[in-house]
Amino acid sequence: MTEKAFQDHYPDDFAHCYGCGRLNESGLQLKSYWDGEETVCHFQPRAYHTGGFPGFGYGGLVASLLDCHGTASAAAAKYREEGREMGTNPPLRFVTASLKVDFLAPTPIDQVLEVRGKIKEIKGRKITITETLSAKGKIVAKGELIAVLIPEGFMDGK
Amino acid sequence: MTEKAFQDHYPDDFAHCYGCGRLNESGLQLKSYWDGEETVCHFQPRAYHTGGFPGFGYGGLVASLLDCHGTASAAAAKYREEGREMGTNPPLRFVTASLKVDFLAPTPIDQVLEVRGKIKEIKGRKITITETLSAKGKIVAKGELIAVLIPEGFMDGK
Repeated sequence: MTEKAFQDHYPDDFAHCYGCGRLNESGLQLKSYWDGEETVCHFQPRAYHTGGFPGFGYGGLVASLLDCHGTASAAAAKYREEGREMGTNPPLRFVTASLKVDFLAPTPIDQVLEVRGKIKEIKGRKITITETLSAKGKIVAKGELIAVLIPEGFMDGK
Repeated sequence: MTEKAFQDHYPDDFAHCYGCGRLNESGLQLKSYWDGEETVCHFQPRAYHTGGFPGFGYGGLVASLLDCHGTASAAAAKYREEGREMGTNPPLRFVTASLKVDFLAPTPIDQVLEVRGKIKEIKGRKITITETLSAKGKIVAKGELIAVLIPEGFMDGK
């Protein structure tokens, strides 16, 4: 995929998220894209992302992947619904209202993980995304995220 | 509080969790304690834990705090139920089955955060913990975590 990731459209002042900000040098710098009607993100964990069990990731990593991919997917879905290109003004940016994660199996960290999102519902300012986290095709976690659109003007201090 | 934290009782081989392992030098090294019938953990975020909004934490940080404090609280609660000191053998260690986070307000990262846990239910191998995350007394997130006891022998490779 050579197109720009959802997160690469975020304005500079809002591009420092530890999970997905392109300007956060310490962070995970997640990149999410459309794949047909779904959204997708790939991530290679680092060795220090281990959980309590050697070789497997910590729960917060799983939640971080689902959270950042979910809010980015919500933004992309809202732009698409409005027939607009991502990054056009006014910016559409979402925050998480709730996130539910079901951990189905340990998450390996020695391989690339895949997060996939589906737009379950768009209802005004609120978007529900269902997600899966997979390793080599095996689903290791499922998530459901409710994202809320930030009011217009908030991001430019109005 | 001068007593040993829950996490400091984890065996060395299982003390590398990014969220709470005392031996993970890159990690958050969360420390959880009893405070009466509740459990408590304090954490000072770092500047790079920012979310998309300057000055506030990323969602995955909130989830990480609730996840690691929750599983540690579950372990402590099970030891207490069995009338045993933490760290005695056989080890009681929990993994997360599910985590639900409700984000109520932005989480500031320029101050110490407090995670508090309550043992909602102990049912065999499964323990439910309800949690709050607060900044200067204001609750910014709530969580509910279901933790499951790892089968005996699993941790020593039997």
